[in-house]
Amino acid sequence: MKSRPSREDEWVERWTRSLRNLPLPGLRHGIGHDCAVLASPDRRLDLVLKTDAVIEGVHFLRSTPAPQVGRKAIARALSDLAAAGATPRAALVTAGCPNPKSAARLQAVYRGLASAARRWQVAIVGGETVRTRQLLLSVSLLGTVPRGRSPHRAGARPGHRLFVTGSLGGSWPHRHLTFTPRLREGGWLVGKNFPSAMMDLSDGLGADLPRLARASRIGFRIFPERLPLASGATRRQAITQGEDYELLFSVPSAKVERLRRSWPFSTRLTEIGICLPARSGFHSSGIPLRGYDHLA
Amino acid sequence: MKSRPSREDEWVERWTRSLRNLPLPGLRHGIGHDCAVLASPDRRLDLVLKTDAVIEGVHFLRSTPAPQVGRKAIARALSDLAAAGATPRAALVTAGCPNPKSAARLQAVYRGLASAARRWQVAIVGGETVRTRQLLLSVSLLGTVPRGRSPHRAGARPGHRLFVTGSLGGSWPHRHLTFTPRLREGGWLVGKNFPSAMMDLSDGLGADLPRLARASRIGFRIFPERLPLASGATRRQAITQGEDYELLFSVPSAKVERLRRSWPFSTRLTEIGICLPARSGFHSSGIPLRGYDHLA
Repeated sequence: MKSRPSREDEWVERWTRSLRNLPLPGLRHGIGHDCAVLASPDRRLDLVLKTDAVIEGVHFLRSTPAPQVGRKAIARALSDLAAAGATPRAALVTAGCPNPKSAARLQAVYRGLASAARRWQVAIVGGETVRTRQLLLSVSLLGTVPRGRSPHRAGARPGHRLFVTGSLGGSWPHRHLTFTPRLREGGWLVGKNFPSAMMDLSDGLGADLPRLARASRIGFRIFPERLPLASGATRRQAITQGEDYELLFSVPSAKVERLRRSWPFSTRLTEIGICLPARSGFHSSGIPLRGYDHLA
Repeated sequence: MKSRPSREDEWVERWTRSLRNLPLPGLRHGIGHDCAVLASPDRRLDLVLKTDAVIEGVHFLRSTPAPQVGRKAIARALSDLAAAGATPRAALVTAGCPNPKSAARLQAVYRGLASAARRWQVAIVGGETVRTRQLLLSVSLLGTVPRGRSPHRAGARPGHRLFVTGSLGGSWPHRHLTFTPRLREGGWLVGKNFPSAMMDLSDGLGADLPRLARASRIGFRIFPERLPLASGATRRQAITQGEDYELLFSVPSAKVERLRRSWPFSTRLTEIGICLPARSGFHSSGIPLRGYDHLA
């Protein structure tokens, strides 16, 4: 099966073409990667930048408890830093709220956000509160990663094995609010130099893996029977639902045994597929390769 | 005249109290300053972070030409970096748009933004496009400043003189879309170590100067007859209207003559007042000290 970029990917590509405006010396990964990675003035570190928003009616509901909204806002952005192997340092928070009457809710959102930030050791250093028609939170993160080590989406090669952390599917209605960003796992993987490519699963394996494959110019085969299913989830859901916030990464086959033996976490680690030459296309035993499309 | 914090300042203080969550080693200025300033791993530089949003119906209108919306979004954030004396390096852009039908408008917004970013030498390195009920753009900037040199709002002392760049008042309907962020002026002032405190004027002198005064625990007197009025603007407008995007800064009196003699820009430089002891209060010859209040 061949797979076309989703409507979202096409639009975003079209919209953002004009934004690739300036070559930045020391920019390692820019637009189109989970995080931006820049050389820092220090020779040992790169800087990692990420922004991510949650919006009422899209990423949470009016009925979602406010502290969980705040937690999700920062945990989503942290999941991208995890995929970059980065250690989070500082956050800027922009909150849009419909009117001062929602102040009590916004304060509870902030409390959830601050508590999550403390847990994952991110200092909130600035931001602003603006008036919008729906509640929204946008979190920008600054992190650091050992120089030149942050993997991105373009490093997978035919023969590399595909892994995911944790379990997939059935993230709504609960887990998308309570997931743990895989910061420790991402930092460890990058520190040990295992991943040839890595990203986090936010729109679902069926949407995100094709993005990694296109960036790396490879094909792939998923083994659906191996997918680590969340309790109650089907294989189809594990591929087509989004908001898993697990790590998806490729590993050269020579490193796979060492990875399995040395994995130090209780978090599940599962080999779910293999990278193929581009001409082989995308294979998933007939399960449609699609995920959450923000613009469908 | 004494002046109470605006409704906005009170709400923001209340909302954000819970966000001051974690002491960050090397954080020089955090929440409550125009920009966050952090020690960089490099000993010569500090990192400067800023996020700023523009929203349809608040910062621009449906009828505002799209490229000017993009330009304003980044120019506003750059104005804050100017007040920190920082050199901009990289930007993340979050765009919210009501539906894919507004794609043509969003593309024109992005073109304006990219062109402005090129002009001021900022690389756009990431971001996202999300669906919102009204068009909005949030820009997060990373910049650098010589280590330990970035002024903030709290350094003004009684006897220091108050200066502004450019001219004030009458920013709507045009200048708020076409202003030049004072990056060169801010960088020069900080490089020469003139300002004891500095901020940019976004909500109007009548709102912003009291913020600087409260942060510095001082009083002040404005000389309205000295205010550099924009063409057609009254003194009252120069104090109470917002969106000037000029620099407001205090200078120890011993440095004033040297500042005047060495100012190398065609941009106007005007002494508009003097810092007083806190007990003297805030004086503006009867013109009300208020500005644009986002939550009034």
